[in-house]
Amino acid sequence: MATELRIVPLEGIPEVAEGDDVAELVVRVVELEDDDVVVLAQKIVSKAEGRVLRLDAIDPSERALELAGDLDPRRVEAILRESVEIVRVRPPLVIAETRHGFICASAGVDSSNAPEQGMLVLLPEDPDASAARIRERIRELTGRTVGVLVTDSFGRPWRQGTTDVAIGAAGLPVILDLRGRRDRVGYELHATMIAVADEIAGAAELVMGKVEGIPGAVVRGLHLRGEGRARDLAMPAERDLFR
Amino acid sequence: MATELRIVPLEGIPEVAEGDDVAELVVRVVELEDDDVVVLAQKIVSKAEGRVLRLDAIDPSERALELAGDLDPRRVEAILRESVEIVRVRPPLVIAETRHGFICASAGVDSSNAPEQGMLVLLPEDPDASAARIRERIRELTGRTVGVLVTDSFGRPWRQGTTDVAIGAAGLPVILDLRGRRDRVGYELHATMIAVADEIAGAAELVMGKVEGIPGAVVRGLHLRGEGRARDLAMPAERDLFR
Repeated sequence: MATELRIVPLEGIPEVAEGDDVAELVVRVVELEDDDVVVLAQKIVSKAEGRVLRLDAIDPSERALELAGDLDPRRVEAILRESVEIVRVRPPLVIAETRHGFICASAGVDSSNAPEQGMLVLLPEDPDASAARIRERIRELTGRTVGVLVTDSFGRPWRQGTTDVAIGAAGLPVILDLRGRRDRVGYELHATMIAVADEIAGAAELVMGKVEGIPGAVVRGLHLRGEGRARDLAMPAERDLFR
Repeated sequence: MATELRIVPLEGIPEVAEGDDVAELVVRVVELEDDDVVVLAQKIVSKAEGRVLRLDAIDPSERALELAGDLDPRRVEAILRESVEIVRVRPPLVIAETRHGFICASAGVDSSNAPEQGMLVLLPEDPDASAARIRERIRELTGRTVGVLVTDSFGRPWRQGTTDVAIGAAGLPVILDLRGRRDRVGYELHATMIAVADEIAGAAELVMGKVEGIPGAVVRGLHLRGEGRARDLAMPAERDLFR
């Protein structure tokens, strides 16, 4: 039997600073249950990890000055440092591949919801490791076995608007692999590799409301267990038809 | 205050045939409330609309024979007829732009969950109109004002796996436009155009379970009203950096 899902916004989490214990902030505002998936916006995780840069501390390289055009070359420099490849540039858009293998605008470098003006927030160094740490800490604090996702808003080719996707994961599969399963007529299913972690990330976004500052949500009712890493959602370059 | 979301699977809907009243099948298995979003897998809508082809009734064109390679040329012919452009071919993948402007595998032509072997299911002729019709019929049957999405599983560049996205919409916005809104520090938000319809589609997929044959879900608690069309989620070719 299929079960109902509930998506509960994490309300009442204060502005986060470097060194804050994100797991503790979460368990203070919600009573977790086993198999819950705790979804956290990248921003809160990055800030707790001190992944923040002051614009005026950045000395732009020649390449940054070249690429920048009308953009702030210090911001472009930060993007270059976070990237392994610049995939496309159409000002003000810089689409880049991050060190984790994700392709997104500005390599995830962002100035909105930064601690103060003139600051940039970077993606966590290793968002899968961030998710795993938060998961362990939640277990320590509550005894609960949960999944954790770290998410960000990514644009995508061909479709307008952003959706939230998983950039870090721990304690749940990121892909549901249904290869070989058959429909009732006997055909293999159409969608056989379902990116559940991205669907959970998008579902959580629906209650997160960026303006009101709700930095996460709990998704309850999934009962997915596994050891996926969000990094495995990145399509290997050689299999990718569109880069 | 943020509210909790609930995602309720539509269980107990029988196999659908041409001419069936999908709205009636839905309201028989769930008590709808105003502002619910009824999410329906494309397959059920297409079958009710008779958008089904027998493979053995298809006479492949020369172009289909050329493109097919190891693929069934009749299937390729069906894809060509549903397409305005073939975007990439790497057997067995044919990525095409549909008449609606969506870019996806096989132009949405699919043999899994077809009524019987040797049949293909096509996308609805006009999925936004399908959604609008079902929405009106639900209002007629129940007096409830709901949103309706028709969804399908699409792959995407750069990331593994499929996520469900909206291909038809009625009675809700497909994009949440936050342009101009500011964070607490005063910066414009990072994600300013949120493809909520795609996030709702993905959220619903999490309870739909293709194998068990749950063809839809109700998303409750969003309270989004608007008149979006899923067609507007398709990125205009001239703005698309990746085709």
